[in-house]
Amino acid sequence: MSEFKRVGLLGRREHPGVSQVVAHLLELLDSRGIDVVLEDRLATLAHFETRAMQPRDAIGANVDLAIVIGGDGSLLSAARTLVRHDCPVIGVNRGRLGFLTDVSPDDELTAQVSSVLNGDYTTDRRFLLDVEVTSGNEVTGQAEALNDVVVNSGTSAQMIEFQLQVDNDFVYRMNADGLIIATPTGSTAYSMSAGGPIMNPRLDAVALVPMFPHSLNSRPMVVHGDSVIQIDTLERNKNNPLVTCDGQVSLTLKPGDSVMVKKKSRALRLLHPPGYSFYASCRDKLRWSDALTS
Amino acid sequence: MSEFKRVGLLGRREHPGVSQVVAHLLELLDSRGIDVVLEDRLATLAHFETRAMQPRDAIGANVDLAIVIGGDGSLLSAARTLVRHDCPVIGVNRGRLGFLTDVSPDDELTAQVSSVLNGDYTTDRRFLLDVEVTSGNEVTGQAEALNDVVVNSGTSAQMIEFQLQVDNDFVYRMNADGLIIATPTGSTAYSMSAGGPIMNPRLDAVALVPMFPHSLNSRPMVVHGDSVIQIDTLERNKNNPLVTCDGQVSLTLKPGDSVMVKKKSRALRLLHPPGYSFYASCRDKLRWSDALTS
Amino acid sequence: MSEFKRVGLLGRREHPGVSQVVAHLLELLDSRGIDVVLEDRLATLAHFETRAMQPRDAIGANVDLAIVIGGDGSLLSAARTLVRHDCPVIGVNRGRLGFLTDVSPDDELTAQVSSVLNGDYTTDRRFLLDVEVTSGNEVTGQAEALNDVVVNSGTSAQMIEFQLQVDNDFVYRMNADGLIIATPTGSTAYSMSAGGPIMNPRLDAVALVPMFPHSLNSRPMVVHGDSVIQIDTLERNKNNPLVTCDGQVSLTLKPGDSVMVKKKSRALRLLHPPGYSFYASCRDKLRWSDALTS
Amino acid sequence: MSEFKRVGLLGRREHPGVSQVVAHLLELLDSRGIDVVLEDRLATLAHFETRAMQPRDAIGANVDLAIVIGGDGSLLSAARTLVRHDCPVIGVNRGRLGFLTDVSPDDELTAQVSSVLNGDYTTDRRFLLDVEVTSGNEVTGQAEALNDVVVNSGTSAQMIEFQLQVDNDFVYRMNADGLIIATPTGSTAYSMSAGGPIMNPRLDAVALVPMFPHSLNSRPMVVHGDSVIQIDTLERNKNNPLVTCDGQVSLTLKPGDSVMVKKKSRALRLLHPPGYSFYASCRDKLRWSDALTS
Repeated sequence: MSEFKRVGLLGRREHPGVSQVVAHLLELLDSRGIDVVLEDRLATLAHFETRAMQPRDAIGANVDLAIVIGGDGSLLSAARTLVRHDCPVIGVNRGRLGFLTDVSPDDELTAQVSSVLNGDYTTDRRFLLDVEVTSGNEVTGQAEALNDVVVNSGTSAQMIEFQLQVDNDFVYRMNADGLIIATPTGSTAYSMSAGGPIMNPRLDAVALVPMFPHSLNSRPMVVHGDSVIQIDTLERNKNNPLVTCDGQVSLTLKPGDSVMVKKKSRALRLLHPPGYSFYASCRDKLRWSDALTS
Repeated sequence: MSEFKRVGLLGRREHPGVSQVVAHLLELLDSRGIDVVLEDRLATLAHFETRAMQPRDAIGANVDLAIVIGGDGSLLSAARTLVRHDCPVIGVNRGRLGFLTDVSPDDELTAQVSSVLNGDYTTDRRFLLDVEVTSGNEVTGQAEALNDVVVNSGTSAQMIEFQLQVDNDFVYRMNADGLIIATPTGSTAYSMSAGGPIMNPRLDAVALVPMFPHSLNSRPMVVHGDSVIQIDTLERNKNNPLVTCDGQVSLTLKPGDSVMVKKKSRALRLLHPPGYSFYASCRDKLRWSDALTS
Repeated sequence: MSEFKRVGLLGRREHPGVSQVVAHLLELLDSRGIDVVLEDRLATLAHFETRAMQPRDAIGANVDLAIVIGGDGSLLSAARTLVRHDCPVIGVNRGRLGFLTDVSPDDELTAQVSSVLNGDYTTDRRFLLDVEVTSGNEVTGQAEALNDVVVNSGTSAQMIEFQLQVDNDFVYRMNADGLIIATPTGSTAYSMSAGGPIMNPRLDAVALVPMFPHSLNSRPMVVHGDSVIQIDTLERNKNNPLVTCDGQVSLTLKPGDSVMVKKKSRALRLLHPPGYSFYASCRDKLRWSDALTS
Repeated sequence: MSEFKRVGLLGRREHPGVSQVVAHLLELLDSRGIDVVLEDRLATLAHFETRAMQPRDAIGANVDLAIVIGGDGSLLSAARTLVRHDCPVIGVNRGRLGFLTDVSPDDELTAQVSSVLNGDYTTDRRFLLDVEVTSGNEVTGQAEALNDVVVNSGTSAQMIEFQLQVDNDFVYRMNADGLIIATPTGSTAYSMSAGGPIMNPRLDAVALVPMFPHSLNSRPMVVHGDSVIQIDTLERNKNNPLVTCDGQVSLTLKPGDSVMVKKKSRALRLLHPPGYSFYASCRDKLRWSDALTS
């Protein structure tokens, strides 16, 4: 019998295909006698209000497995909540493969989810980052991120001046549009478009990627995942700096405030059906098979 | 006798050295019997309120030569006004060499400015860009830029979706933080930090540099200076896009608005004392002599 | 009647589809009463030895239009010969679109080539580079390139030390794997993989792109097409530097030799059937339509 | 009393300052009653033939500490030999700071080396890579590297076609000038000029950096230090591929041969006098303090 006795279905975005995927999953889960709870917003969206509904946080506390339907953005958002309850997650995409939502919504949906329910899956531990903003000696903001923490000027195409320390060791002072602190999970997202390296998810490392640095010598840097990363914004910044987590959650700073970023003690358990390969995702999403030919 | 009978002194930033430079220049110009007008803000700042003062735009209309004291930012700002009156400009930096303000404020100040007054100078024509925002069929904003026009999402670390046409030929549709349209003058500024090429100021060309493009295939592109560049922002953008000129002037768009960028018909006449070399500026500012050695 | 009374067919690579394309073209040209000459190698390859055959250089001197069948590599090679005779060229690819060989070998072959023969075409002038190697005061080598001139150490993963001058103005001294000097035509080839900008073919400009420069400050640079570019290799280089043109022709240098690169006075006339767009080629070859989606 | 009873002095390059540094070190070591052995080449070079001399490999087996005088290149070369004997190493530069040779040859020489001899030092474990070339099923070459392994076409500015596997998982097939496999130690060397990230030496990771890849989608990738990296060159390559280790040792391949790269089981023990900071080395060598200012 399945180790997953209660399953939650979560999702965020309005999308034509979502209700169909939810219907398929409900049929599969019902047929196996598994209790199902729907995230309230998803139930309303997909017209399944007759089923058990709960808000996201309650689901995380009560189920043995969460299935997120949507794009990578939906999974990022759900993951930040679910990780608090150590709830394992699988991601079902909506037609287009994601790096995180690697279960297809088509013919293979039943087979792939059944495999996982049967215990035939691999577990991928993806760490998150804890972010803390301090103003003087006071903590004024907290957040977390699965992909990346972006410290920036808060105004597009404007620079921020800051100082970086890693493990209390001074690294550099920089004028740039900002700094991206990315996990391996986030290394194929925003960080990559800024020139950061792709990092294998197994890697216990964090990438520090400057955004349009004024100094030409600046380069992406990779440090150990256990590093404590501190960004001190300078008092003389004219705008209020901003910290953005996964492109979804923002904290506003005052010039002079500090941002502390370190690995969250508990990692997300991301489950994959058999056959998952990080490099295969890269090939598909980054179209590595597409060599130019002369 | 000098072709420059009336000279304007302009500047913008508060800076310890500015009033000293102004005093030196006044002495030099007075001794040669040249009429001097000070930009009103500069006069106040440097405590020369007893001298003839005018606002910037009036100075442009009335002098034969404008001397801008400050950094490249000051010259950019002054240039956008002065070009309307076809007024030649020289830039005096405040201790630190700029790409545009290449006259030093030290011992050589008198010699270098005297050379120019004696007619011993080279003229560098730097073209500007005209920017026009249209909403539907209505022109809703206009601006100009000497360095660059940046079309962006208006919110840091957020993407904008737009379509690019050059000379009515469709180029691409893109998801990115924005697009930088840079002149050769601006090619050593923001554009360079985004991976754009350095362009010799003689070049009649414009660089189109994507900012953190979502597609990895995107590359900086250089097109002819006569090109008409059109960026159509898509209706489905959720934020109000922003157009920033020289990092100093902003126009706010509505999703769906279009931005038209083309070369201004009149170029700025930037004068240099004898011995100016664009590559020497690059070597100095970009520290090209600093090769790493193993 | 067609302005093209004698047409040459050229090609280089062995390829299954070539003889079929040649047969189609012969049929079309014969039916229009146009004299045809085949490049000798192509005739042999495609078993058309019964037709008039000539070596490449003789064809250039004798025909009104050259049709090159093959990839961009074939056209580069043919172009360097044909430009001497000011012979216009069209390129037919072998199934896969090239930047230079933009006529498709399928159903549209007859229609597209007929259009050109009827005078319905656009002319694209693509300039070449003349390369001259001097050792002391003696010219020891000459070559030409349509895409790029690459000065390198002659040994892979080894550095060369050289000095760059543009129009007799010193630019920098550099330690790098080499320097790529690319035309707009070559800007989408090797130069692009080294970080050089895409340049519109209309542009009268040359890109100078360092290869793995030891100094982090180095950037691709674009200079005017009329520039005289001089690379002086230093005596202390331990290997014999190499100059490679279009990746096809090589000249070996001695340490201390100089390389002079400038625009060839005569440009290649590349003809396109109606509907050609440089940006469409880019979209197709660089897969610009392929945006990542989250 | 010092844990280092026998010390070896090694060096490679002819350099004005070397014999002076050797004399200083001999004086210091003699005064402390420490046995000294000089590398034979170094003794000859610096005219210390009267002292005990041995070849490098014998020194590694017989001393408790090796002091390498020279640049990073000298230390790389010595390290590949010394690691076999688990011999700790310190590097004295010849005037110009290196990433690996961080003891200065000036006034601080005596103080810094004395600290180490007194047991006041930090130990930095730097892993090396083992390289194995196989042709068919036969091992045809072996080498090791502290900085990087570069698989390339063997001919400058020519491409090699290869396939990459990491831990038996297929990653991509690529056309490029080559592939750089860099350790954290090598991340500030050749890899960095090819766009690879800087990696903190603590990191147990390897960077895979494509050299001028034909496909624009390719990006530097960082994988776990325990990964087994396999590069299979394709039979259809026309040139003999080359594997270069630390830019100093080369192995020639035949098309179709494979290269296997993995972490060496024993790491180099690199000692630093008190006060060493990796980031300080970066700031100094990469001139991070040099922000451009407008």
